[in-house]
Amino acid sequence: MTRSKDPLQTGRTEIRVRYAECDPMGVAHHTVYPVWFEMGRTELCRDSGISYRELESSGVFLAVVRLEVRYDAPARYDDRLELETSLVRATRVKLEHAYELHRDGLRLTRATSTLASLNANGRPQALPDALLERFGG
Amino acid sequence: MTRSKDPLQTGRTEIRVRYAECDPMGVAHHTVYPVWFEMGRTELCRDSGISYRELESSGVFLAVVRLEVRYDAPARYDDRLELETSLVRATRVKLEHAYELHRDGLRLTRATSTLASLNANGRPQALPDALLERFGG
Amino acid sequence: MTRSKDPLQTGRTEIRVRYAECDPMGVAHHTVYPVWFEMGRTELCRDSGISYRELESSGVFLAVVRLEVRYDAPARYDDRLELETSLVRATRVKLEHAYELHRDGLRLTRATSTLASLNANGRPQALPDALLERFGG
Amino acid sequence: MTRSKDPLQTGRTEIRVRYAECDPMGVAHHTVYPVWFEMGRTELCRDSGISYRELESSGVFLAVVRLEVRYDAPARYDDRLELETSLVRATRVKLEHAYELHRDGLRLTRATSTLASLNANGRPQALPDALLERFGG
Repeated sequence: MTRSKDPLQTGRTEIRVRYAECDPMGVAHHTVYPVWFEMGRTELCRDSGISYRELESSGVFLAVVRLEVRYDAPARYDDRLELETSLVRATRVKLEHAYELHRDGLRLTRATSTLASLNANGRPQALPDALLERFGG
Repeated sequence: MTRSKDPLQTGRTEIRVRYAECDPMGVAHHTVYPVWFEMGRTELCRDSGISYRELESSGVFLAVVRLEVRYDAPARYDDRLELETSLVRATRVKLEHAYELHRDGLRLTRATSTLASLNANGRPQALPDALLERFGG
Repeated sequence: MTRSKDPLQTGRTEIRVRYAECDPMGVAHHTVYPVWFEMGRTELCRDSGISYRELESSGVFLAVVRLEVRYDAPARYDDRLELETSLVRATRVKLEHAYELHRDGLRLTRATSTLASLNANGRPQALPDALLERFGG
Repeated sequence: MTRSKDPLQTGRTEIRVRYAECDPMGVAHHTVYPVWFEMGRTELCRDSGISYRELESSGVFLAVVRLEVRYDAPARYDDRLELETSLVRATRVKLEHAYELHRDGLRLTRATSTLASLNANGRPQALPDALLERFGG
């Protein structure tokens, strides 16, 4: 197990807010942000040379078991946002990520999530060593 | 192959418009209607004694290959809508449905779709006879 | 301000999992649950004789500022779920809700959220007394 | 009114398929494609020096009144797609677009849509001349 104040990995993803993602208040609906966080994790994986798509093909599934989001300011249609995704902790069975979403330097959202490593039947399954190493855990 | 002016099957589904389904114009986003149509097909299947979920478990997949929607009037958050779903044509390889969505007698949307019968690998696969019979084809 | 172990209000909503809500793992995607929680709040409002739709028309907006979800077990396509939504705290500026989602007695998800009362411009705005009373705060 | 075989405008948008956009068949759900088409229209507007966001702020709303999609081949999670969006007809009250979606040269989807120009109350409203000119109509 590895834990530190410094993230094991950090990556950035640019996001353009879609019209379909906005609600009658004219802002991005609060359920859309976790979709973006998932995009951040996909890109972070790719940065480590891991394709999450191939991971699933090989029988490793990472399922969100906990999610916490704090919404500080709204995002609007066509906004260009910068998402920072960090892997903050990696064990054989769990991955913890942290997220910060900004627009022009203003922080809109902070979030954390925990992913569990599962097999194709949804049962806990230890991450392969090689994979855990790539994640820096 | 069976074709007639009268639908092979017709069913009704009540729909309550969700906040998350509405956009900055304050109306249900146009991409949500086909989600409702799919709900209508699930219920129509159930009415015929077929669980679409079990159908997939048995290796029969029905994929949308064509969709046409005409939006006559908008639906709004918290509206209570009535969806009429009809199976209008059934062959060994394709199912055609028609949809009408109303609110208090006012027609909001008309649509049609074509589904293709596929196997788990996405290849065309004839519908089992027993199933086709149930669909009335 | 009112706070107690017992919720101020509790309501139940039945949910049928839609095909479009499920992901390649074959389970409801984790971002769909907060959509259901929002449906629970809409129904809880209605139970108190308040239409959230009319609330917005009158210039009162309730925006999610914090959300936490724990996913204990997955929901699958066509599952029939029972959502329990509770208002656990109500002040002039914030509402706190708790959620439990079950399928046949098995708890799938626990969650809490905080909503802030805003005006049409997204600025904090105290809830009208009459409204706060209805919420039991 | 202007009509020709050659589109008035054409633009390209790159799309990365999100995990949340895929369904239990492991492919992008058919309701996601029209979300992408809308992104294509936003970018096509931007290419013409028009911000659709500002358009709405100025009281011009473009609502989808007809949509037709043909799904030739599926898109999968993490696929990199190329969307070609064309404005094929522009009148004072309607805009017609055509779409083609490709992956590595393989066409996945063809679609057309009709948008109506509305005011903030959802009533038909002629497009301003300056705007129609920009659209090439």
